[in-house]
Parts: sequence; structure tokens; C-alpha cells
Amino acid sequence: MTADFHHRLASVASEIEDVLVTIFDVATDPPVPARLMSAMRYAVLGGGKRLRPFLVVETARLLKGDSGTALRAGAAIELVHVYSLAHDDLPAMDDDDLRRGKPTLHLAYDEATAILVGDALQTLAFETLADAATGADATIRAELVRLLAKAAGAAGMAGGQMLDLEAEGRFGAASALSAQAIAHLQAMKTGAMLSCAVEMGAVIGHADAPSYQTLLSYGRALGAAFQIADDILDIEASSEELGKATAKDAARGKATLVGLWGVDKARVELERLTAEALAALDSFGPEADILRAAARFTADRRK
Amino acid sequence: MTADFHHRLASVASEIEDVLVTIFDVATDPPVPARLMSAMRYAVLGGGKRLRPFLVVETARLLKGDSGTALRAGAAIELVHVYSLAHDDLPAMDDDDLRRGKPTLHLAYDEATAILVGDALQTLAFETLADAATGADATIRAELVRLLAKAAGAAGMAGGQMLDLEAEGRFGAASALSAQAIAHLQAMKTGAMLSCAVEMGAVIGHADAPSYQTLLSYGRALGAAFQIADDILDIEASSEELGKATAKDAARGKATLVGLWGVDKARVELERLTAEALAALDSFGPEADILRAAARFTADRRK
Repeated sequence: MTADFHHRLASVASEIEDVLVTIFDVATDPPVPARLMSAMRYAVLGGGKRLRPFLVVETARLLKGDSGTALRAGAAIELVHVYSLAHDDLPAMDDDDLRRGKPTLHLAYDEATAILVGDALQTLAFETLADAATGADATIRAELVRLLAKAAGAAGMAGGQMLDLEAEGRFGAASALSAQAIAHLQAMKTGAMLSCAVEMGAVIGHADAPSYQTLLSYGRALGAAFQIADDILDIEASSEELGKATAKDAARGKATLVGLWGVDKARVELERLTAEALAALDSFGPEADILRAAARFTADRRK
Repeated sequence: MTADFHHRLASVASEIEDVLVTIFDVATDPPVPARLMSAMRYAVLGGGKRLRPFLVVETARLLKGDSGTALRAGAAIELVHVYSLAHDDLPAMDDDDLRRGKPTLHLAYDEATAILVGDALQTLAFETLADAATGADATIRAELVRLLAKAAGAAGMAGGQMLDLEAEGRFGAASALSAQAIAHLQAMKTGAMLSCAVEMGAVIGHADAPSYQTLLSYGRALGAAFQIADDILDIEASSEELGKATAKDAARGKATLVGLWGVDKARVELERLTAEALAALDSFGPEADILRAAARFTADRRK
């Protein structure tokens, strides 16, 4: 099962890479300026687990949705994810040097280019979804745009990043957040995009209402579990293992459940959320085993 | 005629302001963090001619397209325009202090907030277009998303900003651009969004193929004229008249036709482009007078 899962994860990542290359290779009139195209490729290609695309693709597959549409939607959500990494890494934001094992974009290029790349990747995500090449009818395409925009926007990922900076004390005194406030922040910053991936898969697979709710619950629990696992890794893994800087959260005053509770109690909560994600899938048979494995992988991953 | 035009421009700006306020007032779950919402409103509300929305609304009106849809689409293109101003003004980009008569966003708030606001406004634009509240069927909504993304992205506005920074010598030696290269840069940076506004109006008005082409030609000529007029204003107007810093383009080494040719020759080209925009509308009767007035306004405006 675990071997199967890792094989499938790598296989979807490879398919997503192909779709992303295809998207970048489209000839436009006028052409994309060479420096911008080079920096966009640097940021996007050849790295990352592609977990969000994986969730789109496997949720759609569970419901026998169109695989071409799922791959395009997976590429789109990855473009938004990478834009957010490029902007979060900027000196004015988290000021990070290492990302996916390489120098961050503003170091490999410069700050202005990193800002523009993030902007252009976000735009490209929505262009990708809206384009007829996505292969779904316009109702589905418009709904995918709406869901992704909602998850990425001011009431989702971007809003979560704002709360994160506030909690660090960037705009005044740092505030000591309650566990509930941290969970809220993380549901916006990380959870919204992960559950959006599952929801996009459900839309592509024309999920009926009960399945839709089931999958949403799965996505939300998995999203919350993911961030706790990430925060434990930040403390326990080395920078080489992770391909990004570690142990910076505490130094920075980032609000995390691990920081509030310590690793042991955080791990108990991680296991509770993983069980919740698995329980949400009870109405599905073995055809959902790959999503079950994704929940276990999220909790147990070492990078 | 001129009085009529200014009345109509102000009237559409007021309607767009109402739509933007309505969009910001939508209760979301979770709510948008207060600091982010406050900064988004600061950037967007109470300023600007709203020329892009005006072009959407008046082009749609010419073709008897749905006015509610046109106003939502106008609000969406304005959100993208304002996001681009917020990011262009950043210290790492053009480092501007004044915008629409007020301190720029990163001065009124801070850099991290300005980056996040730009990101979230772009997202909100696409969410606004894709939402069923836009009132058009999904085919139209998906097409509006696609057009706006194409105009704003790496082969449009964002790409034009990259060329602009390159021409300034930000990533190596400044290059002396030919008139053709400057026109190309400006067609991407400014022209794409202005002609997109006209094109969105044509889509909302279900333009037939000949009208669509006619309006595209109008939008492209108007977009090119707009930038030359803007560059002339940068030299001739005062900072108080304009509500933003002036005479900075030359100091910065920005590539403009005014810088290459001087004001007199640039004004000849501006008049040629304005005549081209007017000629494109020859197949329309007096019902297109408001678009004709928009072309004259673009050339003659003092701010």
C-alpha cells in the first residue's frame, strides 16, 4: 500500500510536470519576456511533492471524473501554490533563502522579478482553468475558478498569511494566540488550498451532495493535519532533508500548535485529525484507499 | 458632448464604486482579517477615473449587453488594475510615494501588507467574474476570466512591467529601445488591459464578428494613445494636478516615446492613434459617440 502510494504520488507529479511544461510552452502573441519566462520555470518546474494536484487528480479519479480536466486543474492549483511560496519567501514577508532545495526566487533572480513571477503565476492559474483546453464545460470551469479564487484569496490563503504576520508581531506587539486561533489561522493559510484541491476533484467528478460533503470533511481534516505535520517537521527535520530552512518558526515567533503545546501533544492532535480524515471516507470502499494513504502520508511524512 | 462625457464618466465611476463596496461588504466565512480588508479598501475605494470599467460598461451598452454584468466585469478589471498599481509602487519595483493623491499602500501600511493586498485583489477579481452573481451564463463568465487573465499576465501587463524594468537597466545595462520596442512594451504594460476592457464589453454585448474586430481595433489604438498621453502628462503636469509623482520617468530612465522623440513628435503620434481609434468606429452611428468621446478624452486629458 505504502509503496503503491509513493508510486502513484510520483506518477501524478510526473504527469503534472508535463502539463506545466505544456502550459509554459504555449506560444503567445506577444511572447512572454525571456527573463520572466525563465524565472517562472525556475519557480515552478522540477520540485515539490505536488500534493495539491495529487488530491485533485485522485479525488476526480475516485468519482470517475475526466482525467485531462483534473490534470489541468491540478496544474492550476500548483501555480497558485508556487506563487504563494515566491511571495511568502520575499524579504518583506518571511525572508527565506532556500525553497525546494534551491535558492529562493528573489535570490536566484531579484525581488522585482520574484514579485512579478508570483503575480503572473497567479494569473496563469486562472487563465489555465478558464481556457476551453481544460476540457470541461464552462459551468465546471467557472466553478473551478471560483473555488480556487475563494481558497487563495483574502478569506483563505492570503488572509491566513496576514494573520500569520500579525501573530509574529509584525504590525505591533506579538499576540499569544489560543489553540483555536492558531487552528483558524492555519485553516486559512494552508487548509483552504488543500481542501480546495479535494473540492475541485469533487466538482470535476460531478460528486453527488453526500459525497461532496464527505470529501469536504476529508479535505478539511487533511488540511489541518498537514500543517501540524509541517510544524513538527520544522523542528525535527534537518534543512537538507526538507529542502528549506528549518527551526525558523520558533525563532520568528510563528504561531504553531507545536510551539503552544510541544511536539507530543501536537502529535496526538495530528493523529486525531488523521483519524477524522479517514473516518470521513467510511462511505467509500477500497476505491478510496489512495486518499486514505494520502491522509496517512500527510501525518507520517519525513519531508 | 464633452460635458455629457464627463457626466457619464463620473456616473459610471460612481456605479463602479458602489459595486466595489458591495463586493467588499460580502460576509465571508471565515471573515477577511481586519487589517487586510482595511488596506484593500484603502487601495481600491474613492479614487481613480475608473477608465477601464467605463470602457467595459460603455462598450456593453453600445451592444445592449447586460448592464449588471458589465458593472461586475468593470469592477473586476479595476481590481486587477489597482493590484498592479500596489505592486508597481513597491520599493523593489518603481518605489513610488504618491498614488491617486494619497500615500502609496506600502507607506500607509507596510510592504508585506501591500504585497498581500495586491495578491488578494487579483484573486478577488477572478472570483468576482466567475461568481454566478455576475449574472451572465457560465460561457460568458469563463470567457471574461480568460480574457482578463490573458491581458493581465506574463504575455500582457505583467510581462510589460518586466520589459519596463529591463529597459531601465535594472538587470544589467539599460538598453536604448527603438520606437517599435517602446510601443511593444507599452502595448503589453498598459494597452493590453485597456483593449481588454473594450473586449470584455464586446463579449458581454454578444458582439458579432465584424463588430468584435472593429471594437478590438478601437481598443488597441486607444490603449496606445493612452500611454503616450500619460507620458506627456508626466512631463507637463504638476504632481498636485496628477495625484502622483511626475517627471520621474526620465530620471529613472523609463523608455517612453516622449523621451525618445520629444513632446511635439509624440503629440503627432498621439493624434494619429486617436484618429485611428475614431476611424475604427466608423461602422457605428451616433450610439458610439460616447466611445468616440472617450478616445478624445484619452488624448486631451489633463490628469
